[in-house]
Amino acid sequence: MFEDFREYSVAEFFKKNRHMLGFSGKVKSLTTIVHELVTNSLDACEEAGILPDIRVEIYSIADDKVKIVVSDNGPGIPKELIGKVYGKLLAGTKFHKYKQQRGQQGIGASGVTMYAKLTTGVPVHIISAYQGKMIIADVGIDINRNEPIVENIVETDTDIHGVIVEVVAGEVKVDKSEYSVYEYIRQTALANPHAQIELIVNGDRILYERQTTVTPPKPQETLPHILGIPPYEFLEMAKLSNNRTLRSFMIDSFDRVTSQKVKELEKLLPDIDFDKNPKELSWDEVDRILKVVKSIKWYPPRKDVLIPIGEANLQKSIEAIYKPEIIVTRTREPKIYRDGVPFVVEVGIAYGGSISSKVLRFANRVPLLFDSSACAITKAISEIEWNRYEIEDINTAPVLIVVHLASTFIPYVSAGKTAIAQEEDIISEIKLALMEAARSIKTHIHQKYRLYELSKKKEALLRYVDQLASDIASLSGEDRELIKNRLEEIIREKYSI
Amino acid sequence: MFEDFREYSVAEFFKKNRHMLGFSGKVKSLTTIVHELVTNSLDACEEAGILPDIRVEIYSIADDKVKIVVSDNGPGIPKELIGKVYGKLLAGTKFHKYKQQRGQQGIGASGVTMYAKLTTGVPVHIISAYQGKMIIADVGIDINRNEPIVENIVETDTDIHGVIVEVVAGEVKVDKSEYSVYEYIRQTALANPHAQIELIVNGDRILYERQTTVTPPKPQETLPHILGIPPYEFLEMAKLSNNRTLRSFMIDSFDRVTSQKVKELEKLLPDIDFDKNPKELSWDEVDRILKVVKSIKWYPPRKDVLIPIGEANLQKSIEAIYKPEIIVTRTREPKIYRDGVPFVVEVGIAYGGSISSKVLRFANRVPLLFDSSACAITKAISEIEWNRYEIEDINTAPVLIVVHLASTFIPYVSAGKTAIAQEEDIISEIKLALMEAARSIKTHIHQKYRLYELSKKKEALLRYVDQLASDIASLSGEDRELIKNRLEEIIREKYSI
Repeated sequence: MFEDFREYSVAEFFKKNRHMLGFSGKVKSLTTIVHELVTNSLDACEEAGILPDIRVEIYSIADDKVKIVVSDNGPGIPKELIGKVYGKLLAGTKFHKYKQQRGQQGIGASGVTMYAKLTTGVPVHIISAYQGKMIIADVGIDINRNEPIVENIVETDTDIHGVIVEVVAGEVKVDKSEYSVYEYIRQTALANPHAQIELIVNGDRILYERQTTVTPPKPQETLPHILGIPPYEFLEMAKLSNNRTLRSFMIDSFDRVTSQKVKELEKLLPDIDFDKNPKELSWDEVDRILKVVKSIKWYPPRKDVLIPIGEANLQKSIEAIYKPEIIVTRTREPKIYRDGVPFVVEVGIAYGGSISSKVLRFANRVPLLFDSSACAITKAISEIEWNRYEIEDINTAPVLIVVHLASTFIPYVSAGKTAIAQEEDIISEIKLALMEAARSIKTHIHQKYRLYELSKKKEALLRYVDQLASDIASLSGEDRELIKNRLEEIIREKYSI
Repeated sequence: MFEDFREYSVAEFFKKNRHMLGFSGKVKSLTTIVHELVTNSLDACEEAGILPDIRVEIYSIADDKVKIVVSDNGPGIPKELIGKVYGKLLAGTKFHKYKQQRGQQGIGASGVTMYAKLTTGVPVHIISAYQGKMIIADVGIDINRNEPIVENIVETDTDIHGVIVEVVAGEVKVDKSEYSVYEYIRQTALANPHAQIELIVNGDRILYERQTTVTPPKPQETLPHILGIPPYEFLEMAKLSNNRTLRSFMIDSFDRVTSQKVKELEKLLPDIDFDKNPKELSWDEVDRILKVVKSIKWYPPRKDVLIPIGEANLQKSIEAIYKPEIIVTRTREPKIYRDGVPFVVEVGIAYGGSISSKVLRFANRVPLLFDSSACAITKAISEIEWNRYEIEDINTAPVLIVVHLASTFIPYVSAGKTAIAQEEDIISEIKLALMEAARSIKTHIHQKYRLYELSKKKEALLRYVDQLASDIASLSGEDRELIKNRLEEIIREKYSI
């Protein structure tokens, strides 16, 4: 039974389990392709401090085959990395960073290349203009070895910058459903009001203009918070450290560890020599340090590492796209989950107008269209007693709910990044944010009902004014019109809006 | 911005995303460890045709640290593979097979080794008795390279067989919740009535005796069904094939492709030479073949590759563990999803007795305790109008629902194998199975209500018999006892049960 024992590459794993990357179903697969390429473009622009101009073109070629072209005005990609960015799973600039960014795995773009290969055999065609050089190349992936195949390289000089990616994929379908590219791009525009995004599907063009020309602050990279570091990680970091003392290692390696804090630890751990070389730490020592670490108070993570969309921007975005009667947006203070990962929740609730019941989920400004039932956001919404906020049934009321989670590490349920794991700290924070916004909306809904009832009463009373004025006039001999005007005045005063 | 570009191993990926393997939360992490080791033991016994005897021991060592020991009477593991089985992600005998088996990824056991390393630094201790040799060794994992570290190897002769795995893990917690090892083992026993499983937690011993000594038939390996094969896969298989003609390649490589069927294809594809060497196929030819493949009728997949628990066994298991009033079990006919993957659904519905509302989900006899909201089974249950079956609220009624999906490939939502992806074909089949069982249960519930009402009426009438008998006796002069007996007889007849 062991003659079949084999090792296999991560690309083979995700080839067989491609649904884990979002490749299941024709509509979802197309949205996944666009999603991976657009998030890369937005991340690249953000990293380079460029206001993004992104164009997504989709051309139906045959039956269930399309060509997808995504162009951006980002910094481009250097020649030597083009192969690995688009042709090797588990490679990139994002995986090792503690930083708010859209991508965090180094899987997405090469997953697209793999899906194109599986379904059409056509490598992705890359045009990258980076620092004065334009590279044109075809990139494929050797699935069995998880290595890129780069062919037909052409190199010229250029004075522009950016990337154009052309993908020919099969087993995909263009439609306008709630899982479509249309919806994905609409929501991307909503969460990225500083980006201009153009979607062209078989000649049908939709332009989302930017709602603000202010580039959002660039999220800063941070250090891991000392809470939530497993002993192995601590020890590995210590081994690789250039610091000469445990003390300086801790201060330099972790967020919020100050010399003051280390002194506090030293007092609680008299047996441990904080002057020792961190390379010489033992498991037992690390165990004891981390136990004491958990027992003392730490500052919350740095706040400048999290860049929310912002209440005003979110408001503007929702207004531009959905035109509701009222919008309330709330951005909470940053919190941490799993003891050490910073995150911030912001929400918008919009009511009335042409709005129908809808939930928009976002993680680091990326729309989450799929697997809503597995998502922390769905869970949080389901746990709120909406009738306390004058919303009888959240599934049918004309209410748009927008939830955005920003974090240096989004705990996605799977490599497909479609849903946020149901971490309790995150769920509870989303609930607090929504309830806060719901209270304001409640006032509005309440007000609206009051107005409606008042106007109904007023109408009813005004119907009697004519008859009453005539009766009083004939009884008193006073002028009928005068009496009528006076009566109407009284009613209007009493039921004024 | 590109100076940080790095490649990293799949072990690093799952170290950072260990929640995707089921390592999130202390209780869940412990259950995940037991789950991975027990499924490996059960698979090994099944493969070798051995009735499984499995023991799971858990010893609390400190705070949130435990030692887990899982022993089985399986065939053991050969020396040269011990390292890779327990110390390398993406390695194993199961990944490439089209076969119903519990494991299918080659990630689980080495994921356990990684988690132990992260949290305690202790390698797993393996004792493997295989074909006359006993190997004792410590196995760790080099996370950065995803390679095993095997140390302290001792080799002796033996006349027994089996594996003992000892894991020392931190960040875990023993409890008795619905997510605990207790629940996991109880459900494992239910779905594996041929296995004897012993759970010993800090001296507290629970024995699940086997309910049948009949070894279930061994699931056969199958070939992929030709529907649902992407062109790339077809082409790769063709390239690696030893067949000399396209015709024989297709017959030998795919399930249900007969020479008869190939003749049908040949007629529809007169331009394609079915005598050509499969290595010489072009993308275009494969595209055309697969298009026509989709247009003709195919036999469903072979049935003997799927081994359900069986209606009688499932009944016996539920009876032994839950002792309800009534149990209905149904095993459906095999179906396919994604055009080519065979699966079979079986369900049990149990009602009354000490049962409270509960859903048990299984995939290839493995209990799924987590992430129920993401699961196809939960979705299917939520879509049934239970009140049509006299069950007012499925979330509170004293109803136990058991759903088992057996397949040559379970489409898990993530590498943690906690929930089944919401494939429409699977959901609809689960619904059909449940509705079938629910109809029988309805009759029972209906019957039960009828009996209840009858007995109420009977009681009410019997209360008058005494008085009525006396009255009639005094009026007619007949014997009172005789009249009373006759009256009671009439009532009993009319309201007989």
